[in-house]
Parts: sequence; C-alpha cells; structure tokens
Amino acid sequence: MDNSFGSIFRITSFGESHGELVGIIIDGVPAGLEFDLKFIQREIDRRKPGQSHLTTPRLEEEQVKVLSGVFENKTTGAPLCLIIENKDIDSSVYEKYRNFLRPSHIDYTALRKYRGFSDPRGSGRFSGRITAGFVMAGAIAKQILKKYEIMIFAYTKSIGNIIDKREYSLKEIKKSFELREKSLIGAIDQEKSKSMELLIETVKKQRDSIGGTIKCIVINFPVGKGGPIFNSIESNISKAIFAIPAIKAIEFGAGFKAAKMKGSEHNDPWIIKDGKVQTTKNDAGGIIGGISTGMPIEFTVAVKPTASIGILQKTVNIETKKNVEIEFSGRHDPCIVPRVIPVIEAMIANVLLDILLLEGFIPRVLKS
Amino acid sequence: MDNSFGSIFRITSFGESHGELVGIIIDGVPAGLEFDLKFIQREIDRRKPGQSHLTTPRLEEEQVKVLSGVFENKTTGAPLCLIIENKDIDSSVYEKYRNFLRPSHIDYTALRKYRGFSDPRGSGRFSGRITAGFVMAGAIAKQILKKYEIMIFAYTKSIGNIIDKREYSLKEIKKSFELREKSLIGAIDQEKSKSMELLIETVKKQRDSIGGTIKCIVINFPVGKGGPIFNSIESNISKAIFAIPAIKAIEFGAGFKAAKMKGSEHNDPWIIKDGKVQTTKNDAGGIIGGISTGMPIEFTVAVKPTASIGILQKTVNIETKKNVEIEFSGRHDPCIVPRVIPVIEAMIANVLLDILLLEGFIPRVLKS
Amino acid sequence: MDNSFGSIFRITSFGESHGELVGIIIDGVPAGLEFDLKFIQREIDRRKPGQSHLTTPRLEEEQVKVLSGVFENKTTGAPLCLIIENKDIDSSVYEKYRNFLRPSHIDYTALRKYRGFSDPRGSGRFSGRITAGFVMAGAIAKQILKKYEIMIFAYTKSIGNIIDKREYSLKEIKKSFELREKSLIGAIDQEKSKSMELLIETVKKQRDSIGGTIKCIVINFPVGKGGPIFNSIESNISKAIFAIPAIKAIEFGAGFKAAKMKGSEHNDPWIIKDGKVQTTKNDAGGIIGGISTGMPIEFTVAVKPTASIGILQKTVNIETKKNVEIEFSGRHDPCIVPRVIPVIEAMIANVLLDILLLEGFIPRVLKS
Amino acid sequence: MDNSFGSIFRITSFGESHGELVGIIIDGVPAGLEFDLKFIQREIDRRKPGQSHLTTPRLEEEQVKVLSGVFENKTTGAPLCLIIENKDIDSSVYEKYRNFLRPSHIDYTALRKYRGFSDPRGSGRFSGRITAGFVMAGAIAKQILKKYEIMIFAYTKSIGNIIDKREYSLKEIKKSFELREKSLIGAIDQEKSKSMELLIETVKKQRDSIGGTIKCIVINFPVGKGGPIFNSIESNISKAIFAIPAIKAIEFGAGFKAAKMKGSEHNDPWIIKDGKVQTTKNDAGGIIGGISTGMPIEFTVAVKPTASIGILQKTVNIETKKNVEIEFSGRHDPCIVPRVIPVIEAMIANVLLDILLLEGFIPRVLKS
Repeated sequence: MDNSFGSIFRITSFGESHGELVGIIIDGVPAGLEFDLKFIQREIDRRKPGQSHLTTPRLEEEQVKVLSGVFENKTTGAPLCLIIENKDIDSSVYEKYRNFLRPSHIDYTALRKYRGFSDPRGSGRFSGRITAGFVMAGAIAKQILKKYEIMIFAYTKSIGNIIDKREYSLKEIKKSFELREKSLIGAIDQEKSKSMELLIETVKKQRDSIGGTIKCIVINFPVGKGGPIFNSIESNISKAIFAIPAIKAIEFGAGFKAAKMKGSEHNDPWIIKDGKVQTTKNDAGGIIGGISTGMPIEFTVAVKPTASIGILQKTVNIETKKNVEIEFSGRHDPCIVPRVIPVIEAMIANVLLDILLLEGFIPRVLKS
Repeated sequence: MDNSFGSIFRITSFGESHGELVGIIIDGVPAGLEFDLKFIQREIDRRKPGQSHLTTPRLEEEQVKVLSGVFENKTTGAPLCLIIENKDIDSSVYEKYRNFLRPSHIDYTALRKYRGFSDPRGSGRFSGRITAGFVMAGAIAKQILKKYEIMIFAYTKSIGNIIDKREYSLKEIKKSFELREKSLIGAIDQEKSKSMELLIETVKKQRDSIGGTIKCIVINFPVGKGGPIFNSIESNISKAIFAIPAIKAIEFGAGFKAAKMKGSEHNDPWIIKDGKVQTTKNDAGGIIGGISTGMPIEFTVAVKPTASIGILQKTVNIETKKNVEIEFSGRHDPCIVPRVIPVIEAMIANVLLDILLLEGFIPRVLKS
Repeated sequence: MDNSFGSIFRITSFGESHGELVGIIIDGVPAGLEFDLKFIQREIDRRKPGQSHLTTPRLEEEQVKVLSGVFENKTTGAPLCLIIENKDIDSSVYEKYRNFLRPSHIDYTALRKYRGFSDPRGSGRFSGRITAGFVMAGAIAKQILKKYEIMIFAYTKSIGNIIDKREYSLKEIKKSFELREKSLIGAIDQEKSKSMELLIETVKKQRDSIGGTIKCIVINFPVGKGGPIFNSIESNISKAIFAIPAIKAIEFGAGFKAAKMKGSEHNDPWIIKDGKVQTTKNDAGGIIGGISTGMPIEFTVAVKPTASIGILQKTVNIETKKNVEIEFSGRHDPCIVPRVIPVIEAMIANVLLDILLLEGFIPRVLKS
Repeated sequence: MDNSFGSIFRITSFGESHGELVGIIIDGVPAGLEFDLKFIQREIDRRKPGQSHLTTPRLEEEQVKVLSGVFENKTTGAPLCLIIENKDIDSSVYEKYRNFLRPSHIDYTALRKYRGFSDPRGSGRFSGRITAGFVMAGAIAKQILKKYEIMIFAYTKSIGNIIDKREYSLKEIKKSFELREKSLIGAIDQEKSKSMELLIETVKKQRDSIGGTIKCIVINFPVGKGGPIFNSIESNISKAIFAIPAIKAIEFGAGFKAAKMKGSEHNDPWIIKDGKVQTTKNDAGGIIGGISTGMPIEFTVAVKPTASIGILQKTVNIETKKNVEIEFSGRHDPCIVPRVIPVIEAMIANVLLDILLLEGFIPRVLKS
C-alpha cells in the first residue's frame, strides 16, 4: 500500500537512490499502446541531474529499460516494469555523517521508523531519485491522455521571492512549451527566468539552497469526471503530489487567495461561449464539488529549499546524544524546483488517467 | 471507493442533505471502547448550523443515533453506524432555480457527471451537511487517540484579510481550547475574533460571503509514524481534507512560505531537550520524509467563500442555453469557516488513528 | 476493509442479528436505475426464516427500507443504504449458555479475537442474518445485470447423500426458475426435492442438522471479462462466497472431478456454433485463465450442517475451564441450504457487476 | 489491482513466460529480516521444471536475484524486487499454432480480453511460470512466519484416482517433510507415490496429462486471527489460491464431505487439553466464523490436468472460423501437481503473514 497508487492505472515504486536501480511497475496500462521508449527517455532526461550548472553534478546517464509488459512494441495489458540503473554512486558521504542528524532531513524520522534498518545511502527510499519511477509511469500516462487531446503543462512560477504573477491564457500556455525549453529552470517568462537563475547561482555560492513554486495546468480534461467526497479530483491529486519529496503545500485555482475573497469576487460566472458552457474566469481551478468543470485544471505547489546545504548547522550526534554544530558536505541541488516540474506533470498524468479509466472514459484496450 | 476512506479505521459516508438522514459507517473501530454518545453529540453540535447569528438559520436538532456496533455500551469490533436524521428541510428553493447554474456551485458538474439523476435538494451529496458523518467518525477516533494523549486542535486563523499571524506555543495551544469556546467563530485571539465577526456581519448584510483559513495542530503524535512515498502523512491528510467541500488549499508547516526561504532559514535544527530529540522550530510542520518527527503536526487550509450568495450574478439557463443574470435566494452561511473547524479536526483524527492502527501502535482491542 | 467488498460496486455490511437492524451500504450503483423496492423485498423474502416447516420459526417480517441514494424513484449515483429492522428477537438463550462453547460455533474464536467485547446475541455479526444485506445489494446488482441479459440461477444440488447429479442444459435451466419455486427447498428435480425434504424432516426430529450443496449458474455473462492472477473471476467469486457463513468449499466447472481426469477428457473442445465460438462441453465452468469464455459460469459450493443442534455435546465451560457435556436449546434451521441459495445468487451478482463496471462494459450512468 | 495482492504485505507480480524475466515486488516486508537468498533459491528450485523425468524438460537455471529492499543483508522496510531471468526460451511453437485455439487454454479468452495485444509466447502472463514470483514472496513470508513457529506444509494427496486418504496427525506431518523429499511428486506415502508416478509416466507416454489434489496444513497459526464477512481466512486464502493457474476447487476442513454430514457428526467438540482449548477433531479446518481456532488450518485444492496435450483435438481455426482437428506439439508437464505444491505453500504464507501484520501480531520492524 505504501508504495502503490491508483485503482486501475496503478503504479508501484521500488528501488533506492544508491541501490542497483530505481523502478516502477505500472499495472492497468491499456493494451495496444505503441511503446515509445524515446518519449519516456526524454521525460526522464528532463528530471535528471546535471542538465545545467544550476543542478547537482551527478552525471550518470539515466537509461530507461523496459523489462515487461511490451510485445511487438505494443503494450499487452500486462504490468510494465520500467527501470533506470544506478551508476554514478558515491556513498562515502553518508558514512562520514552517520551519527549526525541532518536538519530537515530524514535521518531522524527514518531511524525512528525503521530502527536503523533503512538504507541510508543517498537517502535510500527518501531520495528525489525515486521520482524517476513516477516520471516513467507518467510518460506512459501522458501518451494515452494525448490521444484524448489532454495536455499537462507545469512551469516554475517562483524561486524565492521572484514570482511570475502572470495568469497565462490557454493560448499562451500552448505557446509556452517552447519558452520553457529555453529557460534553464523551467520558467516561461524569460526575464524572470534570468533573475531566478541569478538567485539560484547566488545561493549556490553561499552553499545554501532556495525554494520555489510550480504551477501546473491541465488542458482539455473532460467535464464531469471525478466526484464528491473521497473521489474528488483534489483529493486524488493532492495524495499523489505529496508523495513527491520536498512538496509542502498545494492550492487549487485561487487557493489561499480564495480565503481572502468574497463570494461575489470568487464565484466564476457561467457563460455560453462557442456553444459550450464555460466560466468567464477560473478561480475554481477547473474543479467544483470535486468534479471537473471542463475548464483547465490548475494548481500550484510549494517546493521547500533543499535540506542539504553546506553551511554550519546546529544538530545532534545521535550516538553521543549531544548537541553539536556541523558543516555537511556533499553534492546537492541548490534549488530542486526545475527538476520537480516533470515529476509534477507525471504524477498528475498518472492520477488523471486512472480517473478516466475508472469512469470508463478511456477503454482498457486502445483502438488501433 | 468514492465514499470510503481509510485502511483499517475505514469510514463510509452515505445520506443526502435533504434525504432521510446523513450517516457514516465506521469499520475497524477497536473493540472495547466506552461508547460516549454525549461526546459525539457535542462534536456534532460544534458543526451544526444556527449556533450564532453568523450562521445559516437551519434550526433542526441534529441528534446522533447509533444503529450498530455497540453492545453493553462498548464498541464490539463490528462496524458502527451513526446517523443524524434530516428534519428542518425546505427543498422549495432548488425547484425555483432548477434550470439556472449557480456560479461556483455543483449544479453544472453534477449534471454532467450524473446526467440529471443526482439528488439536487439542498445540494444532495455535495452539501456540507455530509461532513456531519465525518464528525461522528472523528469523535470516535478522537476518543481513542486521547487514550494515547494525542490531541487535535483547529482554530480560525483568518477571515478575509483579518489574519491571526501569531505562532502559538504548545503551552498556549493547550490553554486555547477555552478561548476558542468564547469566540463566536472559533478564533483564539479575542480581539481578532471581534474584527472577524464584524467582517462576517458586514458581508452578511451585503448578502455576500467571505472565505478564511483554519490552522490545525496535533499534539503528542508519536515520532516515526507514516512513511515515504504514498504513505506520507501529508498524502493521507490532504486526501482526507479535500473531501471536505470548500477546501481549496493546504499547507504543512511553513507551506508556501517555504517556497521563499533559503535552506539555512527553513531547516529545523535538531536539539536534545528534556532528554528527547526535538527541533528548535517547526517549519516542517512535524513531518519529514512523510514521517512524523515527534513535533506537533501543523497545517493550514484555505476555505473558499460560500458559493451561495444573494447578489445578482451572471450565469446560464441550462434549458434555454442562454446567458442570464439572476439573483438566487435561500438561506446560507455568510462564512462557513467556523463550522468547518470541527470537520477538519474530525478528519485528521480519522486519518491519524488509521495510521496508528496500521502500524500496530494502537491495538485492535483496547485494554480495559 | 473487513466489512467491505468490491472496487466500484462496493458493498459495506453493518448491523447485528439481535441489534437494531441489519444493513448494507452500496457505493458505485450506476445512476438512473429505476428503484424497485418490490423486487428487493422479494429477494429478501426468499432468504427469510419461517417460509416452510423446514426452517427456523423466527417469524418477523423483514421489511426492506431505503435510507439514501434514491431520488424520484431512481438511483442517483450516491451510496444506497438499505436496511431491515430486527423485531422478533429473543436473546435469552445466549445468556443461559454464556460460559459454554457451542461446538463448531463462533463462541470461542470470537472470544479470542474480540476478548469478550463482541455482541453475542444471536451470534451478532456472525449470524446468517447478516447476509440479508448481501441479498439487498444483490437485488440491485441483479436488476442492472438483467438489462444486459445476464441471469443468475442457483439451486439445491444435494442435501446429505441425496444428490441431483443431472447436468441441466441451458434450456432446462431457463425453465427451472418455476420448478425451483415449487420445491420447498430450492431444488429443481421434484422427486429428489421430496426425498431431501424428508431427510430434513428426519434430522429435525432428531434435533440434528444436515449439510448440502448448491450449484450456481450464470447465463449470458460476456466473453473476455476478468483476468489472470489476482483479478481472476474465480478469485473474486470465491472471496465473496466465503464471506457467507457455513460455506466450506467451492468448485468451478468440473472442480474436484477435474483432479481425477486426463487432459484429453477435461479439455473442452472449441467449436463454431451459430456463428459463435463455443465449447462442446463446459468442464471449465465458463472460466479459463481467470477470464470468461462466454459459456455459462458454473460453480458449486458446500454448505456445512448448522452448528446449532439440540443434542448432547461435549464441550468446555470457559469460565471453569472444565470439560462438560451439555444440550443446547434454541430455535435453529435443521438445514440452512435453501436459505443460502438467494445469498449465493446475490453475492455472485455483486461480484460480476463490479467486474463489468471496472472493465467499462457497464457505464456509470445507465441509459434511460 | 489485477496484479497485486495483500494489504500490508503486498505483492505485485510482473513479467512474462518468454519475456526478459518473471518478478515480484513485495511491499510491507518488515524491516530487519536477515535476507536469506539461499532459502529463496531452494523454494524456487522446488517449483522449477526439469527436476525429474516427470516434468517438462525446460532446463534453465532459475537464479533468484534481488534488485531492491536489502541493505547490509537485511530487509530495510522498502519494497523488495525479486526476479528470475528467462533463458531457455523457445517461442517457435506459438507461431506455428497462432490461429488455432488450444482447448481449455487461454488462447481464446486472452484474445477476447486483450484483442490480440497480449503476449502469446509461452502463454505470457497466463503461464505457470508467473507463479515463480509468488514463490519468491512466499519464501520471504515463510521466514518471518517461522520466527513465530508457524509452519506450512503441502503435499500431493491424489493423482487421478490414486488417493492418499490418510488423515495425518500433527506429529506425522512434522515428520513428513523428509518423506516428501523422497517422493518424486511431493507425496508422503511412499507406496502411493510410486503408483502416482507410474500413472504420470503412463499418461506421459500417451501424450496426455492428469490432474490431482494437494492438501495444505498450517501448524501453529495463532488463535483469534481473521474475521467474519470479507475478512474471513477462507476468503483471503481462496482469493489468493485461485490466482494460481490450474486450480479449480478448494475445500476447507471436511469441505464437500461436510455437505453430507449431520451437525452431530461435523461439529468439532471443544476440549481442554494440555491446559489449552482445543477440538478433538478438526472438520472445521482450523477456521470458524472466518477466524482461526488455534487448530491446524487445513485445506485441499484440485489441480486440473495440464491443458497442453499431444493428442488430436477438435478445435477452431480463429482466422478461417472453421472447425478443425489438430495435434499440438511442444514440451509440457504431464502432471503439474508436484510443481504447484511450493506455490500453494508460498501463497498461503503470503496471505497469513498479511493477516498477522494487519492485526499487529507481527510488528513492522522485527526485533533483532
């Protein structure tokens, strides 16, 4: 249960950061999908480290391999097993700091839960690297959703205090895929991007780290899917999103801003436009009563600053039970935000595909 | 699946706003719990309408009844069925507006999902009234958690732009139960409370509504519970919380603020204090790597303004497919925040008890 | 989890034999089903006691009530709550034998599991009466399946050593609904029925009880549903069937006979008949590789003799920890087989509908 | 869902008969278990083909590899991934018979479910080879159960009409592990074993196959585990057992014999013996009301004869839609019973461990 998610399209995560591999089992993949390894690889490459001077230099190639579920280059309806092997591993660091609890890191909580048995190398199961599995599954889900014109787009909305406050129109979003490519950090606004990059460089020099926010927009998700109570789209998305390390908040549509608004401001008026029922604005984030409105699904998440920093910190030596000050070293991302973007997209793809399979909107065998 | 939540302590919601009743089945209740109907009633009374001039005047008594799972006033290990009957029902309003889509209301999404078959009276399954079931279950969960000294406290942090920014110490929280009682709207700070009440009165006069935020704190939750990936405490809490109508955002610990922070600011230093490993501050909100740190679990949610307002709004006549302007009438809460507080507490109780049962921390039969 | 079953069409059982009621929550009922209370009542009446001199004389009326999920006499997509109240209760017996473990009864296992907290009156949650909930859910499922021409028929195949060995053809089965009505004990063959009735009367006079077998046949279940591994139709059916008290065995198709057969005998030859792929015989019971073949699904279950008998038995006084001999009194069925028939049918309806909803074969909203 | 089983100890099966590998993900493995690859290998070797002249000659080595979840030779609490690679593959046969539906084989049902996309090589996901994953998981489960003295023993009870009718005492079972080793086909009684072997040789010469039954006994399973309704031990066991290809029936304790018995014969008298509550016989198979009695859990399953035989059979050419007669060739087991024994044991270990974890009887981290 702990490592599985979904009802029909069900992913099961396994592997460790410095073990042999990181992988994902994907059950419930509709049969008959053309297997596009290149696309999965491209998605993985978006997440992998070492893409710019702003990320951790772990330089391994992350080559996706498929171990099951594909025959004559099509999915068979059987579970897919997708893996990437771990190669560029340096586990020396953890030995050095074994007795010291890294602040805001999982050393202490893992110790208490697993009583010393969890794999500490590279944070083991708690590593961001585990999310590579989510991305591989998401790449499969995205391909299926694309057949139904459903597209998912996430971008860096803020790094520290530098915020891209603009509300992009649907048209602008569709043009933004390219703009995002040009940004080293997954932003749309190229000027903001430069400022954000500069900020990251600065904290990097300080051996510090910085947080940020990511906005995600889903286009063409059909109306009338999801449901009230525990089947709400927000419930399903949030459960999945908080499985990603470093996420500490999520808001749908106007989110926390809604808490400051009056009903007369917040309510999205219905309108007939192009013969379709729509809303004139989208403070609901495309979801009312847990059900999709047919407007874009929109949400924003907060990514905390990387806990690993190279600055003197107060902490505890768990062996001696003494308070100490210590400077941890080791490679890390000064800002994890850009690398979380494809993970957010992947997770939302996994969630939404599962909903559409459960509702019978997408069939269990794809039409050729 | 849609109406059930939890693994061992599993609640199943049923009933409609204007049907016969609203109820909850609670499976997995440990055997041997003294059944305290009065406490459940008290919790329900905290949520019920008509408690002050600031809430909707639906004036019915909400009397909790137990239909199964109790023998000689103790829980038996069998599923509990708890209900409240619906009495003060006026469904005339929905007839009047049947063809008009209330903005930010479930009329359109329900129509598209259920194709006209869903119960529209008083919003049926989408009504806030459904949460009475969550509260009854939560009252059971709270009693069990209390045996392990685990306490849950939520309060109104903001209404509109009036915000109680104070970070209360653990000591202060323990004293705040009484203060909250004194406030008409579930706030701690009595001065802020007055301003918030005034604001609600003002929007009420305007036939408008207003949103707000609720902060929830869990004290004495044991360290080392929860897990990484899909078993994270944040995943479980958020899935449950977004089952509550009107919630549009959640943040744990520093939440969105974390996105603006450097690692050196955000990291919570570990310290040995009173012989125990603790942190000097709690920006993590008591959860690292999805696992409890032993510090208080803290999160804040955004409640959107009530969608039902008595002001002229643009919308659509779904029968004629025409754009129209219309003023909806009918009783409603100008601000739902105070009544959501016990629902938040209840849901978190349900979630946390389930985690502790799954981990074997709390046994399936209570010691007498 | 303990009291719920199914993925989309999900039933949750509650209530006790001598408590206020026995009920069932049915989640995932497709919206738009005409609610036919009379049919549900008829199904319940098939299971209720006191129908002939061969069953227990508990003479209460079992009146089905619907508490939620129906609006304007159609299902709404919300969970249905169906109940029957308990009226003709006599719990004096359990008091009398409180310290004595009835052989092959749940006294000891319940004691050990719930440590004395379970409701002992009328066997509480362990009573056959709980299956009334399954029957009510099954009545809903049957109505939906019927729209797809899927019919379920179970009958008494044997009582004690009196066995109806005949393999009925599909045509004969279709005619057998009426024949079964004529039999006091749910048999098809009227002569065998008389012998079986006589046997039951004989054991009844001896204050003893007798077991039997029930065969169940599903007609028109579509080909290609179910799946290998844990989604096999056999897995799903058997899990559901063993939730019925007194069932101790199940076999599909040739079942245990298959263990004595050669492949050349057991294999069902494929044949094109009426333009359709069929098999010339059906030792597979309509399921190969966990998937439906399009032939009738056939299985047989063993029902053990009622544990409650009025004959001197050896057992233990659990308080004094002494071996004793004791004669239990109290009303009971000399043979529970006839009353289990509608329960089997109901359970299989619940299982098969869930499979067809999961595969998208039956939609979530029915066409009017 | 389709390929996963269990609540806490949760296995997820993947891989194909003639793909790269067959594997299993095991979530919920308690942390701190000494990882004993040799034991897992021994269990796999019990299932693998080519052990005697009576099984299929697929001669590959089946080498177990662990890919995740182990650190410093102990389980970490993370999911284990165990695999065996496929080497000795000959998929030429399926090409030859592509258009012919093998009788009682999955050709037709798989075709209808997956519409031609499923992997046909060596029966793909439907192959008995998939059960190697169950065996690897079971080997882990067995090791944990063994710490609590719980032992699982299955043996060949019958092949065709040759039946070992003896009811072995607990003492005899404990001595039977060695006897079973001596038998080529997993029987206890050495004379019966010889007759069974002869029978298998005979059908082999006839290019035919033969079915049989396996009896399984669980010793020292604690009293008071499991539950009524959907959590019954029978429900959980049967769901798991029917995931094994070729199983067509299961009976607990007296099983189908119970259907012929009177209550006075079938009821197991309680007795105080060695200071413990026991029964003088065990027709209940160690389970009453779905809950363990503390007596051995006993059940018997029917294994159908291998569908693959080398004899002329009537069937259909699915392309031409014509009835044909055809003789299929290809290597196969004349009797699969002996190789199913370790699979049964493994599955029951998986099920029972999950129950004991859910009840908190076995902790999530093992004591060192």
